[in-house]
Amino acid sequence: MKNTPIREYMRQTGKQAREASRVMAKADTALKNRALLAIAAAVRRDAASLLQANEQDLAAARANGLEPALLDRLALTQASIATMAEGLEQIAALPDPVGEITNLKYRPSGIQVGQMRVPLGVIGIIYEARPNVTVDAAGLCIKSGNAAILRGGSEAIHCNRALATRVREGLAAAGLPEAAVQVIETPDRAAVGELITMPEYVDVIVPRGGKGLIERLMRESRVPMIKHLDGICHIYIDDSADTEKALAVAFNAKCQRYGTCNTMETLLVSRRMAPHILPPLAALYRAENVELRCDPIAMQILEGYPCLKAATEEDWQTEYLAPILAIRVVDGLDQAIDHINTWSSQHTDSIITEDYSRALRFLREVDSASVMVNASTRFADGFEYGLGAEIGISNDKLHARGPVGLEGLTSQKYVVLGHGETRK
Amino acid sequence: MKNTPIREYMRQTGKQAREASRVMAKADTALKNRALLAIAAAVRRDAASLLQANEQDLAAARANGLEPALLDRLALTQASIATMAEGLEQIAALPDPVGEITNLKYRPSGIQVGQMRVPLGVIGIIYEARPNVTVDAAGLCIKSGNAAILRGGSEAIHCNRALATRVREGLAAAGLPEAAVQVIETPDRAAVGELITMPEYVDVIVPRGGKGLIERLMRESRVPMIKHLDGICHIYIDDSADTEKALAVAFNAKCQRYGTCNTMETLLVSRRMAPHILPPLAALYRAENVELRCDPIAMQILEGYPCLKAATEEDWQTEYLAPILAIRVVDGLDQAIDHINTWSSQHTDSIITEDYSRALRFLREVDSASVMVNASTRFADGFEYGLGAEIGISNDKLHARGPVGLEGLTSQKYVVLGHGETRK
Repeated sequence: MKNTPIREYMRQTGKQAREASRVMAKADTALKNRALLAIAAAVRRDAASLLQANEQDLAAARANGLEPALLDRLALTQASIATMAEGLEQIAALPDPVGEITNLKYRPSGIQVGQMRVPLGVIGIIYEARPNVTVDAAGLCIKSGNAAILRGGSEAIHCNRALATRVREGLAAAGLPEAAVQVIETPDRAAVGELITMPEYVDVIVPRGGKGLIERLMRESRVPMIKHLDGICHIYIDDSADTEKALAVAFNAKCQRYGTCNTMETLLVSRRMAPHILPPLAALYRAENVELRCDPIAMQILEGYPCLKAATEEDWQTEYLAPILAIRVVDGLDQAIDHINTWSSQHTDSIITEDYSRALRFLREVDSASVMVNASTRFADGFEYGLGAEIGISNDKLHARGPVGLEGLTSQKYVVLGHGETRK
Repeated sequence: MKNTPIREYMRQTGKQAREASRVMAKADTALKNRALLAIAAAVRRDAASLLQANEQDLAAARANGLEPALLDRLALTQASIATMAEGLEQIAALPDPVGEITNLKYRPSGIQVGQMRVPLGVIGIIYEARPNVTVDAAGLCIKSGNAAILRGGSEAIHCNRALATRVREGLAAAGLPEAAVQVIETPDRAAVGELITMPEYVDVIVPRGGKGLIERLMRESRVPMIKHLDGICHIYIDDSADTEKALAVAFNAKCQRYGTCNTMETLLVSRRMAPHILPPLAALYRAENVELRCDPIAMQILEGYPCLKAATEEDWQTEYLAPILAIRVVDGLDQAIDHINTWSSQHTDSIITEDYSRALRFLREVDSASVMVNASTRFADGFEYGLGAEIGISNDKLHARGPVGLEGLTSQKYVVLGHGETRK
């Protein structure tokens, strides 16, 4: 491969990150917390100049005709800056996962064997124009003893630079290496291509963005990724569902927020339950103008609903991220599990039932990162699960699965405490 | 890509494995154990015909001029067949990891959140001409609720076919799908290329073989791997080492077996300890004709040792797998850790010391899959660690690290037990 300037720059960045990661791996909890609080203080103190930098980005984005939704994500406010700082303070308050030793047991040979939680090393984070990710990701990587290389959307470049300065200041205040968090400041897109193909310097990539970006990274990456492509989440309303719970959960899972990956996209209803539950549920959806895409049986039951369409196979595999819901009537639990294991993106799926055995079967047999009984899929979230913070969500099976917090940025090595033992 | 017959065959195999994996994932512990014991019984019963099949392989291998060491690995005996059957019985006796729920806790929202251990799905195992791997790997995959696709060396084809028949018989006896363990019977090397590039059917690849094989697979695989390339393991004898322990452990780690990945390849000795420990240690190595490759200081101390050579940088990165040992004198702990984190293959490294603080620092700061105090590196092994069995060893940081047993063939999904909760 040709040694372009951008390759040179990224490899230099990677080398510095690797060196910094060695220092971060052995840093005291107190030092890491001091850095986090110092960054929070600097972000609060410099809110005005952060807003100014953000304004430069926004002006350029407007001039380039960026979509309103993207402008919205890009914009900082006094409130969102305060939230960033609070996020760092919350991460400082979380227990330090690094160094924890578990399962230390004596073996017949005399040695004691256990496992110690250790940082992964260097985390590469690739994200779009959301300045808050810069601070959140930096905070999580610092606390988990990793070094980070951050590559945000080029639309947020001024703001990210301004934030990077505060992060470096906080690290320096705690005597930690400034290279522990590096923000890639070149707008050159080739930087991403380099970042995902230097396994000698980067241990894991966390891509946060649309399906298109992540699919492209998946094809090209030579570094393992913690990622999910999409969230095609299901709720199955069983014969034995409690009507009140079914209505509340199925409404909440679709309508509480449309654009999130843990929003329900397909509702499955048992044949016996369908005539009883679908009409009152449709009344709730109607108030929110939810479009329903139904299989023939549901179609018949819901005749007269204002925005009703016939579902095609395409609907079972679509993440709408919009007020649209696919509905299918199934024979029972077996067909529901089969539908989910065929079409779900293995993100989050929930059953509504009062039947003990079916609840247990659903939990065991549905092969998704989060499986639920009588709860809204919207709960699949690091904060709701008690992880304290979230760097992303993984639909993969290796390493972390589901919402990924500090622990997902670590792994476990074996520790052996001996007393001079030798192998026989 | 062209749809060759071998691609067609492998995709068909993958599809069947995926279907079987769904059944295996929900199979009772009792059924899985029944299959394991039935396979063990069939292997014992048919020892004579297994030996016959093996004889066909051996005859062909001799005719092809296979090296004696490889012939040795390929050969089955009455004793090795009994060992295979015992291995299966031991796996049957291990606790079933699948379905275990941990950390189930109430959250402020009212939901209960925990993690359930579940199979990975389909495991592809690529190995050389060792028929015992066929049975061991099949056993581990069955117990952990996975389906397996096994691709052994073509030199063992008759024997592997004969073993596959017994595995299928055992699965059928328990009412489990025969496709849960499929042995690739074509000698076509393209089969491996297909196996490692169908992520839709294979969740993880476990390659077992030489460094060359694994490097090639790493370049081409589109499926995550559980693997290690080599074992460049270190022992560091600290200032405060107990002489007796240092001699026993450093001798055992080098000389107990030469060809294993957890054998010590480089010995580091502190400057103050070197003049005291190296001469008596060399006396032990001399009795075993171990060649010593030394840095200048060690060279001087060991003057007169019969097979003494000057070490080059090449020696710090070589896995000898032979009666050869590299020796370097270091200033102290910092330089030892630095040497290890630079040159070790992150497999297993051990410190010999009676100093409490240095022991703790070594455990925390050495970035290897197994870190030890006062114990022989030879203990880095699934059986010695109490995993009950071992499918391989991982030097990677994501997912499993170190010896990989049943648990490494599983992952954890989140389970949420709700009571009708909705997200606010």
